[in-house]
Amino acid sequence: MTPPPTDPTVGELSEGAILGRILARLGGSDALVGPGDDAAVLAAPDGRVVATTDTLVHGPDFRLAWSSGYDLGWKAAAVNLADIAAMGARPTALLVALAMPNDTRASFVEQVAEGLRAACDALAPGCAVEGGDLTVSDTLTIAVTALGSLDGRAPILRSGARAGNVVAVAGRLGAAGRGLAILFDRFRDAAGEPVRVDHDALGDDDAAALAAQLRPTPPIVDGMAAADAGATAMMDVSDGLVLDASRMAAASGVTIDIDSAELGAGPAAALTGGEDHALLAAFPSADALPEGFRVIGRVVERGSHAVLVDGAAYAGPGGWDPYRDWDAHGG
Amino acid sequence: MTPPPTDPTVGELSEGAILGRILARLGGSDALVGPGDDAAVLAAPDGRVVATTDTLVHGPDFRLAWSSGYDLGWKAAAVNLADIAAMGARPTALLVALAMPNDTRASFVEQVAEGLRAACDALAPGCAVEGGDLTVSDTLTIAVTALGSLDGRAPILRSGARAGNVVAVAGRLGAAGRGLAILFDRFRDAAGEPVRVDHDALGDDDAAALAAQLRPTPPIVDGMAAADAGATAMMDVSDGLVLDASRMAAASGVTIDIDSAELGAGPAAALTGGEDHALLAAFPSADALPEGFRVIGRVVERGSHAVLVDGAAYAGPGGWDPYRDWDAHGG
Repeated sequence: MTPPPTDPTVGELSEGAILGRILARLGGSDALVGPGDDAAVLAAPDGRVVATTDTLVHGPDFRLAWSSGYDLGWKAAAVNLADIAAMGARPTALLVALAMPNDTRASFVEQVAEGLRAACDALAPGCAVEGGDLTVSDTLTIAVTALGSLDGRAPILRSGARAGNVVAVAGRLGAAGRGLAILFDRFRDAAGEPVRVDHDALGDDDAAALAAQLRPTPPIVDGMAAADAGATAMMDVSDGLVLDASRMAAASGVTIDIDSAELGAGPAAALTGGEDHALLAAFPSADALPEGFRVIGRVVERGSHAVLVDGAAYAGPGGWDPYRDWDAHGG
Repeated sequence: MTPPPTDPTVGELSEGAILGRILARLGGSDALVGPGDDAAVLAAPDGRVVATTDTLVHGPDFRLAWSSGYDLGWKAAAVNLADIAAMGARPTALLVALAMPNDTRASFVEQVAEGLRAACDALAPGCAVEGGDLTVSDTLTIAVTALGSLDGRAPILRSGARAGNVVAVAGRLGAAGRGLAILFDRFRDAAGEPVRVDHDALGDDDAAALAAQLRPTPPIVDGMAAADAGATAMMDVSDGLVLDASRMAAASGVTIDIDSAELGAGPAAALTGGEDHALLAAFPSADALPEGFRVIGRVVERGSHAVLVDGAAYAGPGGWDPYRDWDAHGG
């Protein structure tokens, strides 16, 4: 289908014209200085700012046959908001660096902006895009930086889990990984290339899994609630529960024992599925759990494995073990 | 030349191993929470944070035949530090998203880290890389976010220039553009593809121009000095003096009259050369100029052109005029 003449490519527009289309879709700004100057100025009410950055690259991280511009904007916001939430902080602003091929349609860029805004409005009200950068690239890339405020709370690190703590999760585990498997299994052509998703052909469960992959809804407000409830450690589950729990265990010098019976109907998917963007946290006791969290295990003294599943070493995929395999700090 | 076996590609290393090599070169962290958790936590002593992002993409923004990893890291830091300085702020932290092909050598990544650190140490002591993200991409891309503190100052916007102000610049104008011209004119093969620069074959002037292009040294501390001296408007000169001055004029509702006699031996290059990362500022009077700044013109009542050169409309390249051409806000 030939695009209508009202949908030029970004190569046919000036940077100012593209920016105008984006800004028109980002909504208002509560920043002290919002978009349009050399830099934004944001309130950091308690004298600290939380900052994280995460990039989605066409190819490894998303495919245009599978993700709309709206999906891409939403996911780029959501995965960064989750990292702010994982510190116990409230997201306050996004900065978005968008690198695009010249033949990208303006309507696609507008959808990205709409997805960014919608994710902020839905997941972290009060947070908005306050700055950014537009560049040309052969590879469509969106690099988002999220900023947040702890509002007087202590940041919740990965390193604070202690033996005797309970381990709990907020958000879904395994669905996003299942959504990716659906894309790979059912929406590729004979050559293995992605083809458009026929959303109408999906049952409710599959549609939910696909949504978890393409447009994740991490439990942002639950991160602040966990901090208020005395969480001793917290992190975003982005690479699968076993792998991320092993990182928390390594940082804390403990072993985390996961009870697979608490992982629902598909414990294997929950243990290893990536891109959940759930929150994994340790709490002093099961009595103190805030709404949104459910117990999935416990912290024990450091043993020979970082993570146990039902008391035993986990041998399945994703059973990477920092006590055995770690070759550098930081993960 | 076959790389030595001690220089693996990033595709041959785990993410943790790459990160370890990077962190070892970034130096210490003064952050409240530095690299290694879901997000960094940084001091924002006066309750505000300044934030900006700028991306360098292989192809449009740099070429590997011309830029070393060190150059790339240096420039990615410098251009972002300049945007913080342009608000009158002190850079406090960088977040770096590095997207790399799998065949990128580990030594190259180490050089990028060394360049990032060296630029911070040289231009903005106390600022360091406090977070980041590593991803795979077909297109080498470095997206940097810089954060800064105003330390109680009011941010200096583009919009505060008033008739009667003097217009001044800190930093070099035109050299970076001349450096780019040297690369295009003298370091491409018959097919127009970049070839390695023979630095030994360059005279002092050309070497300095090339350094201004590949490893710019924006006058970061002068931004704070300008704010302290009462600058009414300030911005980073990244797209050429005439174009950026016209943006300041448009934001301020004034006309800026540039005196070409103050631009040194090559006024045309100074008027239109890009990537200077000098600071353009307006001050109430020439008496109040801080060290580092020199007067190059004056602010007059808004006329029919945003920028004048020697009292007349500027007809040369870069003579883009927001009063005539502007098709959107912000750009």
